[in-house]
Formats: sequence, C-alpha cells, structure tokens
Amino acid sequence: MDKDFMLYNDTAKHLFHDYAESLPIIDYHCHISPQEIYEDRHFENIAQLWLGGRQPDGSYAGDHYKWRLMRSNGVSEDKVTGEAPAYERFLEFAKTLEMAIGNPMYHWSHLELKKYFGINEALTSENAKEIWDKTSEMLKNDPQLSVRGIIRKSNVKFIGTTDDPTDSLEWHEKLAKEDLGFMVRPSYRPDKAVNITKDGFVAYINKLTASVGKEKLSSVQEVIDALYERLDHFIANGCKASDHGLDYVMFRKGSMEEADVAFKKVMAGEKISKEEAEIYQTMLLTALAKKYHKDNIVMEIHFSCSRNINERVCSAQGPDTGYDMIAKSNCYNELAAFFSELDKTQELPKCIVFSLDHNDFNQIATCLGGFQSPEIPGKMQLGAAWWFLDSRDGMEEQMRALGNLGLLGNFIGMLTDSRSFLSYTRHDYFRRIACNLIGKWVEDGEYPANESSLKKIIEGISYNNAARYFGI
Amino acid sequence: MDKDFMLYNDTAKHLFHDYAESLPIIDYHCHISPQEIYEDRHFENIAQLWLGGRQPDGSYAGDHYKWRLMRSNGVSEDKVTGEAPAYERFLEFAKTLEMAIGNPMYHWSHLELKKYFGINEALTSENAKEIWDKTSEMLKNDPQLSVRGIIRKSNVKFIGTTDDPTDSLEWHEKLAKEDLGFMVRPSYRPDKAVNITKDGFVAYINKLTASVGKEKLSSVQEVIDALYERLDHFIANGCKASDHGLDYVMFRKGSMEEADVAFKKVMAGEKISKEEAEIYQTMLLTALAKKYHKDNIVMEIHFSCSRNINERVCSAQGPDTGYDMIAKSNCYNELAAFFSELDKTQELPKCIVFSLDHNDFNQIATCLGGFQSPEIPGKMQLGAAWWFLDSRDGMEEQMRALGNLGLLGNFIGMLTDSRSFLSYTRHDYFRRIACNLIGKWVEDGEYPANESSLKKIIEGISYNNAARYFGI
Amino acid sequence: MDKDFMLYNDTAKHLFHDYAESLPIIDYHCHISPQEIYEDRHFENIAQLWLGGRQPDGSYAGDHYKWRLMRSNGVSEDKVTGEAPAYERFLEFAKTLEMAIGNPMYHWSHLELKKYFGINEALTSENAKEIWDKTSEMLKNDPQLSVRGIIRKSNVKFIGTTDDPTDSLEWHEKLAKEDLGFMVRPSYRPDKAVNITKDGFVAYINKLTASVGKEKLSSVQEVIDALYERLDHFIANGCKASDHGLDYVMFRKGSMEEADVAFKKVMAGEKISKEEAEIYQTMLLTALAKKYHKDNIVMEIHFSCSRNINERVCSAQGPDTGYDMIAKSNCYNELAAFFSELDKTQELPKCIVFSLDHNDFNQIATCLGGFQSPEIPGKMQLGAAWWFLDSRDGMEEQMRALGNLGLLGNFIGMLTDSRSFLSYTRHDYFRRIACNLIGKWVEDGEYPANESSLKKIIEGISYNNAARYFGI
Repeated sequence: MDKDFMLYNDTAKHLFHDYAESLPIIDYHCHISPQEIYEDRHFENIAQLWLGGRQPDGSYAGDHYKWRLMRSNGVSEDKVTGEAPAYERFLEFAKTLEMAIGNPMYHWSHLELKKYFGINEALTSENAKEIWDKTSEMLKNDPQLSVRGIIRKSNVKFIGTTDDPTDSLEWHEKLAKEDLGFMVRPSYRPDKAVNITKDGFVAYINKLTASVGKEKLSSVQEVIDALYERLDHFIANGCKASDHGLDYVMFRKGSMEEADVAFKKVMAGEKISKEEAEIYQTMLLTALAKKYHKDNIVMEIHFSCSRNINERVCSAQGPDTGYDMIAKSNCYNELAAFFSELDKTQELPKCIVFSLDHNDFNQIATCLGGFQSPEIPGKMQLGAAWWFLDSRDGMEEQMRALGNLGLLGNFIGMLTDSRSFLSYTRHDYFRRIACNLIGKWVEDGEYPANESSLKKIIEGISYNNAARYFGI
Repeated sequence: MDKDFMLYNDTAKHLFHDYAESLPIIDYHCHISPQEIYEDRHFENIAQLWLGGRQPDGSYAGDHYKWRLMRSNGVSEDKVTGEAPAYERFLEFAKTLEMAIGNPMYHWSHLELKKYFGINEALTSENAKEIWDKTSEMLKNDPQLSVRGIIRKSNVKFIGTTDDPTDSLEWHEKLAKEDLGFMVRPSYRPDKAVNITKDGFVAYINKLTASVGKEKLSSVQEVIDALYERLDHFIANGCKASDHGLDYVMFRKGSMEEADVAFKKVMAGEKISKEEAEIYQTMLLTALAKKYHKDNIVMEIHFSCSRNINERVCSAQGPDTGYDMIAKSNCYNELAAFFSELDKTQELPKCIVFSLDHNDFNQIATCLGGFQSPEIPGKMQLGAAWWFLDSRDGMEEQMRALGNLGLLGNFIGMLTDSRSFLSYTRHDYFRRIACNLIGKWVEDGEYPANESSLKKIIEGISYNNAARYFGI
Repeated sequence: MDKDFMLYNDTAKHLFHDYAESLPIIDYHCHISPQEIYEDRHFENIAQLWLGGRQPDGSYAGDHYKWRLMRSNGVSEDKVTGEAPAYERFLEFAKTLEMAIGNPMYHWSHLELKKYFGINEALTSENAKEIWDKTSEMLKNDPQLSVRGIIRKSNVKFIGTTDDPTDSLEWHEKLAKEDLGFMVRPSYRPDKAVNITKDGFVAYINKLTASVGKEKLSSVQEVIDALYERLDHFIANGCKASDHGLDYVMFRKGSMEEADVAFKKVMAGEKISKEEAEIYQTMLLTALAKKYHKDNIVMEIHFSCSRNINERVCSAQGPDTGYDMIAKSNCYNELAAFFSELDKTQELPKCIVFSLDHNDFNQIATCLGGFQSPEIPGKMQLGAAWWFLDSRDGMEEQMRALGNLGLLGNFIGMLTDSRSFLSYTRHDYFRRIACNLIGKWVEDGEYPANESSLKKIIEGISYNNAARYFGI
C-alpha cells in the first residue's frame, strides 16, 4: 500500500495527487464524542484506540465493525470486548486481519497505521508485538496523537456529530469557544421521537418535555413545537444537518386528530397498530422536513437496516455492538410520495438518501431525479456507500449508479459514520477509489482529458460540493 | 471517441468493424411519430432536435432523459422545457453534460454529434456557440438531416412504432405507399384497455367502442372482440409486435362472469378492489396473448416502473416529462403462472420480458428458461437493457445474465425506445459494448477464436436474430 | 482452455498450480447415486453420461442444466430427453453449446472433455462425430471411466450424498465396507417432513412411520422423535450434514399444541392456513436444529427457488427436469429470528446459508455476522454460489460479498450439487476463479504477497476449511 494504493492508471494518480489528496475533509456525519474532542483525550494503546470494548460502567464503546470480524474468526468475547489483556486482544485482531483478504477493514487498518504511526508493514501475528510497542510508545509521547492532534493531522475542516434533540450541546458550545483549527457542529437526530412503537418512547417524550421546560406535551403539535424549539437551539450552535434512521420509509397521511389518538394511546401505555404508528410518524417527519426546508437544514434519511438481531447477546451488550444486518425494503413509492407531498408546497428540503442495500441504488437515484430543483445543483443526493457498503465494491457501485442515472459531478462525497478517531483515512480511501474510477474512464476515452472539467469534478466530489451543499 | 470507442481489445475491434458495424438496424420498439416521418420534418436547430420542450398547444414533447439531467444540474424549467431562447437552453445542456461523467447520455450525445454532424470535439460551454452555429447551418442546408434523411443515413431497415389500438394507422398506411428505403410498422399497445383502475378508463373504452363502429361494449368479451378486430387492422398494416407496460405482472384467474362484474362496475363509475381489477386484467392479457400466438405477434412485457411521481409538476406537465422511477417488483411467480397457463394449451406467444430493475435479470432469465420451445430458438427473450438501464453497465449486466443463464447467441438485441430521431447511435453503442464483452471472453480463452461461430453470434445479436424473430 | 484457463495474473497461476490444484476434493453436497457408485456403473456413450434422459420406467434422470439449454436453442424434446438416437442428441447439444458463449456450461463441458477424455478441442457440430467416436471408445475400454474410476481420477476424498430420512442407507453401508479410496457419506434431508402443505405429505409421514417400525405417529413430538431416530441412523453411517430446501425461511413461534392441531388437520385431509403451516414448520426446524447442534451436524439451508413452473411439462416429466426458477425472498428477519431463538439457549448448529438470488448475498452475510461464535472460526457460512449462480460472475460476487462483509479466509468453498459424475471439474473451475480473484488483489497491492498467509487462505478455501468444518 504505497502512495499509489488503489490508483491503477496514470490519470487516477494525477487526479488524486494533484487535486484530491490535499483538500480538507468535511465529515458531515459521524458518531464521535464532542466531549472527547473537548477534553482532547489521549489513548494508552492501540487496542483502546482501535477496539475499545466494555467500559467500567458496563456499557460498550468502540469499533463494532472490528468486533464483528473478530467474532467471525472464532475469537472469544473476552478478547473481543472484554477483560482480556489489551495486547492479547490486539494480537487476536492481528490474526483476524490476516484472514480478512478482500475486506475494507484490511485497507483502513493499514492506512491508519501508515498515516498516524508511520508503519508501512502489513500487520501479522508475527510483528504484532513490535507494532504494539511502537504504537504504544508513540501514543504516550506524540502530542499529535491526542484526539485533537489526530483531527488536525487529518486535515479535517468540519465535523458533524450526531446528537439527540434533548442534548444540551454543552460540549459543542465549549468547543466553539476554542481555537481548534476545525469546526465541530451538532447534527439533529430525532429518531427517538419518531419511533413511537419502540421501547422507551414514553420515557423519551418525558425527557423531551423536560428539555423544553414544560410539564407535559399533550399533543402531536406540542411534540412538534418542542422539536422545533430544540432544532432552533441546534441551529444556534451551527447545526447544518438532521439525520433520520428509519427501518423503512413510511408515508401514510392522516389528520392531526388521528395522529393525536395514536400518540395519546402510546403515552397511556396502550398498543397501537402499524397504521396508527405510520400516521404519527408521517405527521412528524413531514413537519420536521418543512422546518428543515425553512431553515436550510439538510435532511439525511437512512434505511434498510435491521438492528440487534441476536437477542441473547444484545440483551447483555446493548445496541451498536455489532449485531445489525442489512435489511430488504420496498418503500420507494412511499419515499416518492413523501417527497411529492413536500414538493407540492415547495417545502422539500435538501435531502441525502442512504440505503444499506446496494440493490436499491437505482431506485433511489431515479426517485431523486424526479425532485431536483433550481435551488441548488444536486439538491437531492444519493448518499455515499455507507457502513456495510463502505468498501471499494460498494463505493464503485454507488458512483456508477449515480453516474448512469444522475450527475456524478454534483456528488457531495464521503462521510465516515465513524466511532473511531482514526477513521479519516476512509476519506482518503474514497478519494482514491473515485479518482481511479474516473481516471479509467478518461484513459478509455469515455470522457475527454479536459483538465478544467476533471479538476472541477474531482475537487467537487472531494470537497467543494459538500462545502456548497452544507454552506460551510 | 474515435472509431474504436468502447472497443478495448483487438477481437472486439475486429468483431465490430468486420461484422456488426455495417448491418442494418431493426428498431423494433420506439416512440417516434409516423406523421413526422411522413411529413419528413426538418428541424431548425439542435435544441429543437435534442431537447424539444413545451409545444404551442401546451403539451410537452421531446427527450425527457435530457430534461431530467438538466434539472439535476439545477437548471430552471424555462431553460429545460420552457420559453427561454433555444441557444440558452442548448448552452445549459452543454454545461450539464460536463458534469455527466459516467452517464450514457454523454456518450450518446457525442456519438450523435459525430455521426450526423461530423463533430469530433467534446461539447463544453466554451465551444457550445461554435457547435450551435455549425449544427444550425447543417440542419438548414443538409437534406440528409431531415427525418427521412436521418433514418436512411442510420441504415435503419425496420421501425416499429408504438400505437394505440384505436389509432387509424393513417400515417402508416401512407408511409407504406412511399419508396422510403425502410419499413415503418405499427406496434399494438393496448395498455389503456388493461388499466381498469386508472383515470380515463371509461373514456378510453368509449373511444375503443367508436373505433370498431359500435354503440356500446357491454361485456369483457365484447372488449376482447373489439381489441381483436383492431389487432387485425394492425396486422393488415404489417404489425409484428404488441407491447404491454405493466406496473407489475398480475395473474389472478377468475371466471368471465367475475371479470364482467368488475368491468361493469367501473363503467358505472364504481370503485373495484385490487382483486377484481386483477381478474379483469388477467382475463384480457390471457385473451390477447392467445391471439398473439395465433397470429404470430410478438408480445413485449415491460414492468417495474413507477410513473409521474412528482404530483406538482406532473399535474402541470403531464406524463413522459421526466418524473418516472424504477420500481421494485416481486411478480415472478405470477409471470410464471401466466406463461404456464398459456403453455398448457400451447398458446404461449413469443415473448420479450423487460424489467427496469436490473436486480431482476436472473429471475426473468430463469423463468423464461422454463418456457422455451422448438417453435423457434430463443422463443422467450430476456429484453435488452432499456430506458434507465440503457448504459454500458446495464447492457453488460443483461448480457452476462443471459450468457450465464441462457443462450446469449440467440439474443435479439437492442431497441431504442426513443423519442428522438438521432437515437439510432444507441444501436451502435450497444453493438460496441456487445463486441467488447465477447471479444474479451475470446481473448481470455473463455470461448475459442472460431471465426464462423463468432460471426454467427455477432451478426445474430446485431441483426439476424431480430430479423428471424420478427419475421422481417 | 489451457492449463492457465481463468488465471489472468502470475500470482493467480502460482496460487492455483502450487497450492490449490492438487488438493483433494470434499464434495459435501451432491445428488449422485450411492448405488451407482457401489455398482461402479459404466456408461456406453457421452450422451448417457452428459445428458441422461427419460428412463425405461418413465422417470427422468440426468443433467437438467443441459436440458434447459438445449430447449433454449429450440431443440425438440425427443432430442433433449427422449427417444432420439443418442448421437443425434449429442449433436444437438454440440450445436447448442456453440451459442452458449458466456455460459459456465461451455467451460464445464470442455473442462470435462479435457480432464476425462484428453480432448483439447472446442466441441462444434463439425467435430461432434469425431469426439463422439473417441469418447465412446474410451468409455468402453478405459477402466478409469467407470463411476469409481472417475471419482478416483478426480481426487475426491469425501462425497456427501443427499438422502431422505427414510432411506435405509443400504448402499452407504455397503460402500463403507469397500476399499474405495474415498468416503461416501449420507446427508440428511427431511424436506418432505417439513413441507406440510405440499402434496404427498400424508403418504410421506406414513413412510416415515414405517421406517421407525411404528404403526402411527400421532403428534408432532412423535414426528420429531422419529426424525431424531433416523438421524441417529444417519450419524451411525457417517453423516456430517443435513440439508433443508425451503421456499423461504419462516419463523412463527407457536405452542406444541398449535403445531399438533396443524399436523392432525393435515393428516385428516383438511386444509390449513399459511400461519398454521408455519407454526408446524418452525417447530420442526427448531427441534431438528437443536439436535444438529447436539450431534455436531452441519445445517445447510437453501432457499429462493420456485420449482416446476411449467405445469404442462412438469405434470408429464416430474420434478428436477429443468423447470425451476430463481425466486425473490424477503425472509431475513425470519432467518435472524430463527438463529436468535437457537442462540438463546446456545443450541445453534453450524449453518451454511444459500440463496439462489445473488442480490441477497449481503443480507445473508451480515445476518450471519451476528451469530458467529468461538466454537469454530466461520461457524456461520455464506454458502457458495450454487446452481443457477454457479458461474464466474456468481462465484466472484459471492466471494466479494464474503470478503467485504466477513472473513473470506474462513470460507469452506465449493460444492457441486451435481447429478453427473463428471462434475468434479467444477471444483477446479471454482479454485481457478478464487485464485484469480485473490491473485489480482495481491498484484494490485491490496493484500501483501505474504506467502504463508496466501498459502493458508488458498488451501483453506480449497480444502482445509471444509475438512475442519465437517470434521473429515
């Protein structure tokens, strides 16, 4: 993995090294902790940085992508997330990685070793100890390997965290007063207010009630008003985007009265039907989308994921511990109906639509093509290949779908979705893959070697389009 | 884009230039106007030819593929389809094209500039004026650039238009008397008689009634009889194929009495259930298919498309203005049951099955494999990559699916589905992609460099198989 | 198709020739006859060996993959499966093959001609007679071309046949006493006991009843007990795996009383609802899976297939005659729920999950990732590209999916699923494709050229992982 990693033609090398490589990163969607940025956390060893695991309070924090892979190699849970000595866990990860041929984690891990630790060797069980010692030493002594140091070294300009509407944004406020060299802004994720049939909804509404200093939210309109108030607080703190993680996209129009009935039943501890739930959800999503349009907030919509599929383990470890899977959805008529409803009154916000199922790229791309607008080129965006699709194959398929069915030149590019501070190399990985794909087309004569057009496209996908889109 | 565009190996070049390139075109499915062919329309400028737009009568006519792309680039509607000066619209299209890296329209447009106007440069905003002037001049003076001239220059042998059963076929009749150098034949598309739950059904049945000189069609059998009578008129005018655009393939067997109940309810202005509608539709499709078999008419079946998804715009602009999307279907058991029903009495016609969803190619290919017959090699055809799939990726995936699961050597090849007279280059595009794919296999040693077999296969896919299949 | 067929880079050649090629074959899932192995059947000609056809007793036996392809070429049924002279049938197959460019059967057939008959030419209608004569001569005289000879020549170590629970395993018992040089072991396929809504269920239960020497099975528990007893008999005969062919994966928990109601209704000739059927099926599958876990039997699960779609022909020819198609399923939540239920009590067996729909690879791979375990690396396996997917494209897609989303290094590799004794070349085909894919990654610098890792991975995928997994 030398400097031309993933760049298989001369044009690709030129495009990457001369245009893409040095541009700053806009990481508009991730799951890192603003508190850890504020406190400029230092890590003791690479197991802590790469794997994390069970925390002293019994919760789990860390990179569940890596946990899954280790479990696939038959590693016992004490070495995956548990109490085994840190080096032993790292050694098991090294052994796992050896079997991970064709896996993007193989590439990410080595890009990270190279960029942050200057290590060019492939990690194996043989050199694991040596690499452990070297990285431990550096983590102890190198001030560039604190959280802030890593972010600066990664040339990050903008970080969009993921935050609950009830969040005080205390750490974002503190960060805004620091001279960081990069921006950390909240993103608004009101899933818990939307998920009316999931456990914890009532408790969440109570929390939301408290967050706006009320005693009770008695109606759907009051829930909406509370969410609007919290969104205003987010906007005051520089929020650029909202995010909605949906099992699937629903669209069931009902009256406010019907939505209220559903809401009040659930608040009273009663069960509601799927239809009732969808009326409430549609009401909320529509109201939020209109507010996003008014306030120029980007709406991200994610779906086709089934979470916590292993009941035994998840009841012990909780969510986000590596037990999710790609689902199948067929909600494209509903997605189109949702957009159409908003477009009718010209209140459709900028939207980025992500599915975890690569088979849906064409459906999404053609759906979005029916809602573009003169407001901004590429108002409706096919989201980058994300999470389980964050691989060369996933990215190429997403870019080919967008190229075939829309305008790749207007693509806003990559996000990390990450829970690890080293993940910025995924932007590097993405840019290499994009340059390689485009470079191949140029060398094959499928697009002319027009320097100004190519510069505009590559710089756009790497940075400029996202900057324009989010107004950064 | 030189003469070897898309031909990436020597065998591909040989196959294309020596076998495929010079063969005539059978364009068995398109949407061009027989009247415009008869009147040998001339175009004033390339915006008129490429973009079309809103017509004096308020309707929209032109290439909605291009409109969509312009909207994705944030172009305002007056420049997409509206009243802006023609050159400004062309300039916006040129700018859009620059961002369309990886889009087949980039290739089609330049193949058209090259073939019809001798322009070898890539269109950009810089040279747009120069190209505008040159093409305007040529359109004014070159007699080869009238509709008939373009068709002849394209080496077209057969054009199958798309026509409603109530169409008088007046223009086809007139064209049949001319010495054109190519054939223009109607194709029979009775969608409006099948779509019993869609707006306009009653009015359409009344129109159909009039077209057979009746006062009333009182039963489903009478509707079928009327459709048979119109099909006979089509056949008398050289019709070779029918076409059915379905949201999905239904198969719900009911009695003629049940179908009559559904029909009479709708004619009386009542609503019917999905089940009732499907009984009527199945009855009609089955009756039509049997007639097609008897009269040796090919049955084309298209599905997995959701139309007019943007209510605000479509209520103003009408259908076929660029607001459709790829749908997801799961109707393969019904498709198989439909074929099985017809095959039971040996009345299954030749069929071409198209889905807009590339994920369905394997399902279709394996379904068709259960209904092949000694009547003709490749009786049941996996339709070419069409509309949103009409790209290198789409075509390769379709040919690979057919290659893996059937006999690619019996494939009847490409159609334009076009609304533009310049679209014949899509046959050129397809042949290049087919030759490249096959040439690669040969060079890799996966199929022998047996000249007579390769000639048979390439000429078959380019022309001979379609000629045999449609009896041209 | 020389020795480097399908090997397009030097690393691929090295990996294949130095590691993969000479390893024995574990063919853990096929449909060949243990009786024919025991009797060491000899074939008269290549039509008998390749095509089979209608048997004297009116049943059909042979390679329906080839039959389908011939029908696609318009060959009449007497030459596909019927009474036409054997050479004429072979000649028609040769003509068909010429059109089969891009079809894996083209490759398999020629690999078979080469390996077993030393024929290096491409089969065409011109040389069909010559090849017919040569192969007939060899089949008559070469003792290596009996069934056992073919298996030995193919370097097969283990054959897992597919057997009904009621099978006496007489031929397996006899084979176990022979000095074969390879193992022939039964696999346990209780589909007929699960398929409660299919024709023949009652008769099957009666057969099962007799096989355990009972007069009546009065409850679901008694059915389970009988199936357990038969499984013990299979295990005593060296059974390593079970196999379940499902239309789709259901998971509907009910009580034993509810399952009994469903069972008794069907035994009494009554109809049951889909829900009732699923309760019975879930009960049976869960009980069997727990037994598999206890006895270390691998559970294979196959789905997304619709069978016997052509009613006219299938009513005459019966099942497995070439009239099946790939179905679409959306049963991933049920699959996960099934695994979760078993994992709750730590009774989830080793599982291999196969779908006929390549679009499902990512769903399966991520589902399995939630149920891996320290019991064995790669406990939950994404099944190899199988049947209609048994092509280069299918295999590469399966390996890429596994590579991207799991650990390709732990993959247990290929199976033939075959009904023909020459099919062992499919393991050769698979190994070439695997080596080519991995070799390309290495040459591109995406995985280091670390000899010991590559040896471990290639030998694992070719042989060692399956040996470890099945305990051979």
